[in-house]
Amino acid sequence: MITLHYYPGNASFAPHVCLTKIGVPFTLDLVDRQAEAQRSPGYTALNPNQRIPTLICPGDEGSDLVLWEAAAICLHLADLYSSAALMPAPGSSARGRAYKLLMFLTNTLQPEILTYHYADRHVTDPAAVPAVRAKAEERIGRWLAVLADELGDRPFLVGDDPTLVDYYFLMNARWTRKLAKKAGDYGQAGPYLDRVLAVSEVRRTLDAEGLDPDRFLG
Amino acid sequence: MITLHYYPGNASFAPHVCLTKIGVPFTLDLVDRQAEAQRSPGYTALNPNQRIPTLICPGDEGSDLVLWEAAAICLHLADLYSSAALMPAPGSSARGRAYKLLMFLTNTLQPEILTYHYADRHVTDPAAVPAVRAKAEERIGRWLAVLADELGDRPFLVGDDPTLVDYYFLMNARWTRKLAKKAGDYGQAGPYLDRVLAVSEVRRTLDAEGLDPDRFLG
Repeated sequence: MITLHYYPGNASFAPHVCLTKIGVPFTLDLVDRQAEAQRSPGYTALNPNQRIPTLICPGDEGSDLVLWEAAAICLHLADLYSSAALMPAPGSSARGRAYKLLMFLTNTLQPEILTYHYADRHVTDPAAVPAVRAKAEERIGRWLAVLADELGDRPFLVGDDPTLVDYYFLMNARWTRKLAKKAGDYGQAGPYLDRVLAVSEVRRTLDAEGLDPDRFLG
Repeated sequence: MITLHYYPGNASFAPHVCLTKIGVPFTLDLVDRQAEAQRSPGYTALNPNQRIPTLICPGDEGSDLVLWEAAAICLHLADLYSSAALMPAPGSSARGRAYKLLMFLTNTLQPEILTYHYADRHVTDPAAVPAVRAKAEERIGRWLAVLADELGDRPFLVGDDPTLVDYYFLMNARWTRKLAKKAGDYGQAGPYLDRVLAVSEVRRTLDAEGLDPDRFLG
């Protein structure tokens, strides 16, 4: 059995959409962030970074595989259930493009968004928080502009159909909803994000997490 | 023909090791950082982030594919040339583990190292630089400890044989060589990094980039 340790709207969101699209049975296990459950000994044993999500899924020869890192979980699910077409076929140009954009989201946009929201973790002197947060907001804008350029007037980031890269960007976009300039304010990203939000597996995931689609992007 | 836009010891290193392992013909094109060539209009047209590396490789139906993001380039090369075994087979537990560790390197360890080296890019007030740099060094230590735990006493990060995840960690480890506590100072990471450094395709890449193996890790 597959178990996703999640919290609504957190980094578990993209993996949750992947599982919903695949249609395989899975269990949701809420990590109660309000009670700091991600720092409990039980959760830390699964995920030493004390971050959400963690996925437990079938591994080789009947074993359980414990995975963390949202992008890794999405990629592994795409490989395990290739008929769900969460990613383009390995070796295709579209697959290369999907890797490029997913890596950019996870290693460039997302860390900058985390720095914005948790600027206190990045300074030894609290007086430096505003300087770090202001710069993070400026840099987020630079990366969102690059993504809008990459999107252009495509229906979805990689091509004509949604891939896990779109679920991932939608999730990152949510986390910019309180910024002066949000993800949807760049190029054609606004109508694009509405399009991703309307995809069936995204709708069903929002329902399952108790999230209002009309307020997902602020 | 494949072209890798590179600079010695930069984020092009892991993709370069992948190409060397594959053994396919490729051209190296130096991006002269001393002359800020990564900000030239020609390079920016290939890579809007003005970062190194960029890979030009054969795409679908005779087209050229332009890829950026080192981890994406490594993954796409692994798919294109699967017989080189740069990654474990898709769907295997080892592949899931490889994704997990690669994502952790590229989205957690590496951004923190970049913040350490370029702390000025993360503040609006230069007075905040020391506070940001000190915290980055502390956080790098936390992530290196997680990686050393994941390594344990395995020969390589994913298992018995080197994968692109090892090339990637070696590259990130180089960038910690001036820290008080380097990557090799955690758990069994020291002997492990020496092992990765001794792998044939790594040696040949060091030669091609004019880097001294005895000074690669400081």
